[in-house]
Amino acid sequence: MNSYGRIFRLSIYGESHGPSLGIVLDGCPAGIPLEERDFDADIERRNPSLAGTTTRKETDRPQILSGMFAGHTTGAPLHILFMNKDTDSSVYDAIKDIPRPGHADFPAHKKFGGFQDHRGGGHFSGRLTLGMVAAGVLAKKILDPIVIHAQVTEAGGSAKIEETVEEAQKNRDSIGGIVECECRGVPVGLGEPFFDTAESLLSHILFAIPAVKGVEFGAGFRSARMTGSEHNDRILSLEGATGTNHSGGINGGLTNGNPIRFRVAVKPTSSIPRKQRSIDLKTGEQTDLVIEGRHDTCIALRMPVIVEAATAIVLADLMLLTQHKPRIRPKIQK
Amino acid sequence: MNSYGRIFRLSIYGESHGPSLGIVLDGCPAGIPLEERDFDADIERRNPSLAGTTTRKETDRPQILSGMFAGHTTGAPLHILFMNKDTDSSVYDAIKDIPRPGHADFPAHKKFGGFQDHRGGGHFSGRLTLGMVAAGVLAKKILDPIVIHAQVTEAGGSAKIEETVEEAQKNRDSIGGIVECECRGVPVGLGEPFFDTAESLLSHILFAIPAVKGVEFGAGFRSARMTGSEHNDRILSLEGATGTNHSGGINGGLTNGNPIRFRVAVKPTSSIPRKQRSIDLKTGEQTDLVIEGRHDTCIALRMPVIVEAATAIVLADLMLLTQHKPRIRPKIQK
Amino acid sequence: MNSYGRIFRLSIYGESHGPSLGIVLDGCPAGIPLEERDFDADIERRNPSLAGTTTRKETDRPQILSGMFAGHTTGAPLHILFMNKDTDSSVYDAIKDIPRPGHADFPAHKKFGGFQDHRGGGHFSGRLTLGMVAAGVLAKKILDPIVIHAQVTEAGGSAKIEETVEEAQKNRDSIGGIVECECRGVPVGLGEPFFDTAESLLSHILFAIPAVKGVEFGAGFRSARMTGSEHNDRILSLEGATGTNHSGGINGGLTNGNPIRFRVAVKPTSSIPRKQRSIDLKTGEQTDLVIEGRHDTCIALRMPVIVEAATAIVLADLMLLTQHKPRIRPKIQK
Amino acid sequence: MNSYGRIFRLSIYGESHGPSLGIVLDGCPAGIPLEERDFDADIERRNPSLAGTTTRKETDRPQILSGMFAGHTTGAPLHILFMNKDTDSSVYDAIKDIPRPGHADFPAHKKFGGFQDHRGGGHFSGRLTLGMVAAGVLAKKILDPIVIHAQVTEAGGSAKIEETVEEAQKNRDSIGGIVECECRGVPVGLGEPFFDTAESLLSHILFAIPAVKGVEFGAGFRSARMTGSEHNDRILSLEGATGTNHSGGINGGLTNGNPIRFRVAVKPTSSIPRKQRSIDLKTGEQTDLVIEGRHDTCIALRMPVIVEAATAIVLADLMLLTQHKPRIRPKIQK
Repeated sequence: MNSYGRIFRLSIYGESHGPSLGIVLDGCPAGIPLEERDFDADIERRNPSLAGTTTRKETDRPQILSGMFAGHTTGAPLHILFMNKDTDSSVYDAIKDIPRPGHADFPAHKKFGGFQDHRGGGHFSGRLTLGMVAAGVLAKKILDPIVIHAQVTEAGGSAKIEETVEEAQKNRDSIGGIVECECRGVPVGLGEPFFDTAESLLSHILFAIPAVKGVEFGAGFRSARMTGSEHNDRILSLEGATGTNHSGGINGGLTNGNPIRFRVAVKPTSSIPRKQRSIDLKTGEQTDLVIEGRHDTCIALRMPVIVEAATAIVLADLMLLTQHKPRIRPKIQK
Repeated sequence: MNSYGRIFRLSIYGESHGPSLGIVLDGCPAGIPLEERDFDADIERRNPSLAGTTTRKETDRPQILSGMFAGHTTGAPLHILFMNKDTDSSVYDAIKDIPRPGHADFPAHKKFGGFQDHRGGGHFSGRLTLGMVAAGVLAKKILDPIVIHAQVTEAGGSAKIEETVEEAQKNRDSIGGIVECECRGVPVGLGEPFFDTAESLLSHILFAIPAVKGVEFGAGFRSARMTGSEHNDRILSLEGATGTNHSGGINGGLTNGNPIRFRVAVKPTSSIPRKQRSIDLKTGEQTDLVIEGRHDTCIALRMPVIVEAATAIVLADLMLLTQHKPRIRPKIQK
Repeated sequence: MNSYGRIFRLSIYGESHGPSLGIVLDGCPAGIPLEERDFDADIERRNPSLAGTTTRKETDRPQILSGMFAGHTTGAPLHILFMNKDTDSSVYDAIKDIPRPGHADFPAHKKFGGFQDHRGGGHFSGRLTLGMVAAGVLAKKILDPIVIHAQVTEAGGSAKIEETVEEAQKNRDSIGGIVECECRGVPVGLGEPFFDTAESLLSHILFAIPAVKGVEFGAGFRSARMTGSEHNDRILSLEGATGTNHSGGINGGLTNGNPIRFRVAVKPTSSIPRKQRSIDLKTGEQTDLVIEGRHDTCIALRMPVIVEAATAIVLADLMLLTQHKPRIRPKIQK
Repeated sequence: MNSYGRIFRLSIYGESHGPSLGIVLDGCPAGIPLEERDFDADIERRNPSLAGTTTRKETDRPQILSGMFAGHTTGAPLHILFMNKDTDSSVYDAIKDIPRPGHADFPAHKKFGGFQDHRGGGHFSGRLTLGMVAAGVLAKKILDPIVIHAQVTEAGGSAKIEETVEEAQKNRDSIGGIVECECRGVPVGLGEPFFDTAESLLSHILFAIPAVKGVEFGAGFRSARMTGSEHNDRILSLEGATGTNHSGGINGGLTNGNPIRFRVAVKPTSSIPRKQRSIDLKTGEQTDLVIEGRHDTCIALRMPVIVEAATAIVLADLMLLTQHKPRIRPKIQK
């Protein structure tokens, strides 16, 4: 299913080189102030003008085509559309039958019987995260004053991010990275014991972001090497504040009032500016493959705002499942 | 929601010290041969008589109370019940108001307003994974001949598992571990691009297993330190076989026909045989806490069969979403 | 799916002549006082000792096997089990291959490849409504002080219910009936415009009750013969009270604060004490069929409490989707 | 939730006087031939140029903005958009605070705190059924060769439809009607015993169509006045053909291979060209209300194609849950 959430429910559609991409967002409470420029900052963050990201300047403008009236959400489904610009997709014709290593090309070809839109990854394109970012903007409004912050903490194994990315670019290669995220102000008790633990829900959506290959909460994989006496977070106060935060703010699947903390492993961009070997699906023979166009050297650099959006979508859904009311200026007495 | 799955749908209920625990399993195809002893092997594996697991011998007997007739599944919901034995839960009375570090006690107390069953973790108990294991037995029958295999590859950071566990036991402490899982024979194309990627679905259920704090697929967190030219798995055949398997058998969220491989980080058992500090929820004061009873030194040792079951549940659901028919001896011509 | 609801979620399992039937009820708030005898009155109402219902006295005792602790719901899934008594099902062996007219026998045989439990209708038995009634008891507690009342208003086309039923019984035949239901105290605004209108949700669960063949709200089928000037309910007050209630308390899919009113058409019991003609699925030949045992003359007489339960389940789910808190005595300050 | 379906899943958005309306359709199989003019016939049928429907000629053009490539569905979500023309909605400003009898205005105002788009009913407008009709076009392609046919069989209680409508129009009033639907070629066994019976699923979506107030299957409300010996449909063949079809093609919630037959009660159009009384939500006082603009005299006349679409959506979802493969010309060997 190309949708997510129980109350705050997101459906995503679109392709990289088709006419459009976007989202339908159901369950967004009425009365939230909204205008199209509210999306600018986060859309901009998804498109950093750093070394290692594509320099082609995308200016993606959201069109709010339903669910908004007189500057507020109405409570009806929001439809947010991004039209794609006419881009030349002829470069993809040459490699139509040669699946790109690391991409979804091969399994998508099998799954959809060859009918998938192959151009630029089609529906599998990272470009669809634009819709997630747009949904995140609404989710953050609902969550206010909860604060979610994500950042790249290493690229290619190094904390000297910019240098490492430049180096990889010179080598005509790509590199992976780590994104860390923290959420402050989350109330106690979000999540369910089975199967919708806070970790389950967050990992579900995080692994839906293209290129994510690992997720760990709190001490994560380090936990496996720790003892219980080290790992257990001592409870200090009636509000549940703990001395350490090895649990990443989640015990038994429920948020415990401490900051939620997790790390996301992002693999290197699969499209690299080098000749690669693959197979021709028509002939069955090994062949060379060259992927044209400009591609990010380090896709992780775009991730923080996407990870924040994904996190906000999960938390907004969980908050709306509780007695949470977003901060709106009430128009009428219910 | 205490349920999981779209077609093959599992609902879980029960408590550690309440009368029972079990599952209702909906969407299981009719005609699968089934008897109660089919569960023996996997239930036994969940209860290893190794150092580091509790020596008290549990003999959990499943009762199939619906959905089976004349030795086969009927297509109606299966209800599998495990009655709990009368266990003395008086040891939990003393610590009723003192949340155990690392456990769900504190957030559960807040979430359920003090009405939760606190004895032995109640509904949050790892004992509920018995229901997951039972569902896994059915899922594996549906998946046959797909093979899923999980094992503990390290405990406390060491590959000398038995020694390390004994050492921790002597130190009156607990340790974490790593479980690795591999699935062979999975067809190409399971999973959806957004949001139900194969990784999303697997991580969702894996993080629902108590004590899991990290999940990574293929090269996982190592991917973050790799280059694209290293990481990309070269496609060798029309069946999609790749030279390496850094992707862990999943590209763009879809299974690619290579073995699915992932690693799970398990934290050390939270209940340790040592005095710990916590807070008294009634008085608000710091206090000592001693958790009585026998507890696993290394909960990871019980995990392989649970991880296999969780994986089988996801894959069975995905297979039933395709045109998959489990191997049954047809009784009538449809 | 043998489950219903978004927040207050009911899974049903069991068979008429298998070991048990029951429900798992997820999403029930913590802190609701509960004991097993709370079910007595509604279970008794499902089993009226009137002419036209089977005289065999069923004494169905619910067992609450999870989700309750110290006399209250815990917030974890409730499991309510009814064990079936050992009943002689040999009478069903003779007609195993002869589908009973009006019953699910024929399509169930095809759907489940002959593996279904055929005894007494198996999973299709009206006996499973016992689980619905049990869930209704919890739902009514959540809804308090909303009042739901259903009653049989005619049987066999006549308002002289008892006489008509006796007549049918003498004729060795069965008859249908009408059940009318009214809900008072429902707040304004429950339901969603598309697709989860209040009418959609209610009809969904009402048509899941065996033998229901029609549902109409307010003026219902009479609306089709009315003019707009007759049908439109004039709004009289700021609370939305209307002069007439042709809408049945629902406009545009949303509850409007007036009493919800609907009528349910119940077909005659399919099992009749007469020889009928059917076909032998083994030989393909026409054959006589005699259904042994005692069966209700007018199944509608059992329906009011089942219709109330179904209605309560829908409304409880809708109420919990709003900011509704059931009346509980809070144990701790959240 | 503004969405419907398990496999073939429809999300609907839009408003009557906002910028657009449309659908996202997930789970549509790849390889179905599709072009925009495929929608023409059914869109046209929704807009009959009969007496009793608005004479303003709507020329609604669907835009397929995702999920289609090279003349076929791709398996990714289809997005079908209808832009609204700039219509003068100033007539609605005058009655912004005066809820129209029979409409959702009053409960919507309460539910959404006054933030709803009030113009022309906003998200509650019957205009949104255009999206359902579009989804129905895809569903019918999937179902081929199953045939679904609906028609108006009476209006205002009379079978002389055109005359009765003209009469009502002269009286400056509106009238209701009955729509009957039949589906031929449906296989045996669609639907689930609890809670997703074929009747439950069909009624769920039928009651989501604005103005529907009753649904009955087969003999429906007449069943309530019948005896079992009359009502039971005698089974004549191994394919399940029955002599009569009082069950409407559904037994025990499952399709039985006979034609599915149901009737839908449609209330009279709520907007009538007469002065009505209502209440001013600002002042709390009784007031006169005149609804400007042209409105259908008999909304039932638009219904057949909408009822067919709704039916097709349910059946397509149920068929895709079985081993059904739509007729496509396979492009590659899977």
